[in-house]
Amino acid sequence: MKLYINPNREEWPAIVSRRISSDEAVESRVVEILDKVRTGGDAALRELAQAIDGYTPESFVVSDEEFTRAEAEVSEQMKQALKSAAENIRKFHSAQRFEPIEVETAEGVRCIQRAVPIQRVGLYIPGGSAPLFSTVLMLAIPASVAGCPNVVMCTPTNKEGRVANEVLYAARMCGVQTVYKLGGAQAIAAMAYGTESIGKVDKIFGPGNRYVTKAKQHVSVGDTAIDMPAGPSEVLVVADHSAEPSFAAADILSQAEHGPDSQAILVCSSKEFADKVESEVQRQLALLPREAIATRALDNSRTVVLESVDEQIAFINLYAPEHLIILCREPWEIANRITAAGSVFVGAYSPESAGDYASGTNHTLPTSGWATAYSGVNLDSYMRKITYQELSREGLMGLANTIITMAEGEGLDAHAAAVKVRVGKENQQ
Amino acid sequence: MKLYINPNREEWPAIVSRRISSDEAVESRVVEILDKVRTGGDAALRELAQAIDGYTPESFVVSDEEFTRAEAEVSEQMKQALKSAAENIRKFHSAQRFEPIEVETAEGVRCIQRAVPIQRVGLYIPGGSAPLFSTVLMLAIPASVAGCPNVVMCTPTNKEGRVANEVLYAARMCGVQTVYKLGGAQAIAAMAYGTESIGKVDKIFGPGNRYVTKAKQHVSVGDTAIDMPAGPSEVLVVADHSAEPSFAAADILSQAEHGPDSQAILVCSSKEFADKVESEVQRQLALLPREAIATRALDNSRTVVLESVDEQIAFINLYAPEHLIILCREPWEIANRITAAGSVFVGAYSPESAGDYASGTNHTLPTSGWATAYSGVNLDSYMRKITYQELSREGLMGLANTIITMAEGEGLDAHAAAVKVRVGKENQQ
Repeated sequence: MKLYINPNREEWPAIVSRRISSDEAVESRVVEILDKVRTGGDAALRELAQAIDGYTPESFVVSDEEFTRAEAEVSEQMKQALKSAAENIRKFHSAQRFEPIEVETAEGVRCIQRAVPIQRVGLYIPGGSAPLFSTVLMLAIPASVAGCPNVVMCTPTNKEGRVANEVLYAARMCGVQTVYKLGGAQAIAAMAYGTESIGKVDKIFGPGNRYVTKAKQHVSVGDTAIDMPAGPSEVLVVADHSAEPSFAAADILSQAEHGPDSQAILVCSSKEFADKVESEVQRQLALLPREAIATRALDNSRTVVLESVDEQIAFINLYAPEHLIILCREPWEIANRITAAGSVFVGAYSPESAGDYASGTNHTLPTSGWATAYSGVNLDSYMRKITYQELSREGLMGLANTIITMAEGEGLDAHAAAVKVRVGKENQQ
Repeated sequence: MKLYINPNREEWPAIVSRRISSDEAVESRVVEILDKVRTGGDAALRELAQAIDGYTPESFVVSDEEFTRAEAEVSEQMKQALKSAAENIRKFHSAQRFEPIEVETAEGVRCIQRAVPIQRVGLYIPGGSAPLFSTVLMLAIPASVAGCPNVVMCTPTNKEGRVANEVLYAARMCGVQTVYKLGGAQAIAAMAYGTESIGKVDKIFGPGNRYVTKAKQHVSVGDTAIDMPAGPSEVLVVADHSAEPSFAAADILSQAEHGPDSQAILVCSSKEFADKVESEVQRQLALLPREAIATRALDNSRTVVLESVDEQIAFINLYAPEHLIILCREPWEIANRITAAGSVFVGAYSPESAGDYASGTNHTLPTSGWATAYSGVNLDSYMRKITYQELSREGLMGLANTIITMAEGEGLDAHAAAVKVRVGKENQQ
């Protein structure tokens, strides 16, 4: 990990910058795939599945038999783990339920805000070497709590045409009835535009590779909402001298194993502590099956020594980490001053993996500095808030002069007229 | 207005489709402007202001003198109107304040969700023939209620280099200290990238012409969050036989006067009623200063006769109107079944202009069917929700098997190790 000792503020922007390579080849391939699916529907999906995944399912829909087999093949230990995690996730997301707000802003003027579930939601679950079934819980449980009536999931198969058992088991456990065997940019296209067999959705959620991410970006401009912009995963660990270096090292490595473009940042107050963490990282790294991936991620990773806590906090807020782990004696003194982070792990016994799987918080979080403006996935992500106003005749009378003055000031006379016609001022200029 | 009598469901998609012309010329010009500002900073802004607006201010920042003059020149009547509207808007948005949520999901596992204001917010207020000062209230008041510490505003000048008095007066009234004399795509670029004199912001709000909208789309992919995708304004009026045709007509016209690409839809249960509204539209249209604009907007507008209330509701939800006006005897019977709309105007005395200016609800709302997935601007739009988790050692012990089982099932051994190192299971496989 590259070491920066007391860097001055002018250097910070370079240290916090994520190097995200833009790839013209990915861009043009994705545009081509989106176009094919939009115009070619199911036939295009079949062709693309064969060309890209090397497998075309007879039907994209996972059958009841496949669900049943998955249930039979998942171990009892895994079922118990999924059940425990799901309970916590459901509890925390249920607590986020929104109560309607009603205010009489002026006499006879009622303003109301209510949350209504998004009607058609599409979840994308990546496949690949390790199926991320935890993401099924994180995306499907809040959809269920929100009451979204139509929830579908797309996920790629392996070359034998199978979806991981845990993914199917988790999907059913969380109330997802329809799973399509479909991955990549073509899955995003199918959910954004709809085809003969796959219905268009209103919002797409979920992580993915560069093709999936780029496809989500494209459809978000004109077709379908998406959860948030995505980038490689990242963690910032801030530690004081009370911290156990082996804990900090383990947290850094659990980020690094995600992929070669993951990033871990350690912020601490002395080079001595930084050195201790570094040697723990090397020791633990050697024990990891994914050592090669983690080693490459560590090349992107940085240690920043900043002596003052104020400077540390300013640096963290500038970086706006997806995950922030606070290994300090008084962790809330820092946590309370954080203005930009996805999820915060407070104190020595709150590793990122707790939130990744089972504490109850969501693990779909803003990366690449987007925590400055985006929340992680939460119950709100599955709802829209609609406002309502109901004025009595007297209520409108009371506002009439205000509305008419402002509308005429903006040159919008028909806006004024819509009030005048109701309150008997139609002939008044 | 084009009339559809009991169209069948197959025809609905065509009726609800918005014809939004994509304009290659706008696209390429916007890309060029964004690029210039990103690489050229203030110098590029000056050059573009001269080329596009025909005026380059000495400084982009509105001076105290200009604010003072604006205050002196705004009429007392207008000040009173702005004050009344602002009070209602502040009341309703203050009622949307979010209380932290805290749940102990399992023993020793605390999960917390809090709202934190977005730190740097940029508001765009269009200029042009009629300055939309009401939008200043709608964007700046929730920013103030949210507690966003840095709020800046960009707005174009007229050819004499002046910003409308009402815009400046409203900005100060709502606590916006910094206003830049800068419009168009170049203003969006300045706020998204930052220049020598204009700071980068985290999120950009506000309406604009096609250049502004396209620029917001572009920067939203990789640089800065935006409020929502934008399109031409629209209203859907649903009326039963109890409704006053002149009210429906006035509401349709107040939408139509916004611009030639605005759209109004009337949904009612008989051709007789539709005819009455149509003749009221023609009568009132002749009285409007903006008759020419409104006439063109009426060419995009439609009357849909659907006899059953269930069909009407299904049609409204498919259209997902920005504004929905319900002129029915029992308006809540419809309002309660709406799943997609920006803001709903309930009953005979709730014209759209009430919410456009003064009832308290926000008028920055999702258009073009985006109400299926987006909320209008509300207090949430200025905040992010951060989650926190704090586990005791016992809390982590309780979740350890769940986390380790799931992490190892996903092939993420370092995730499991980050738990094991903390609970003394480091040597356990």
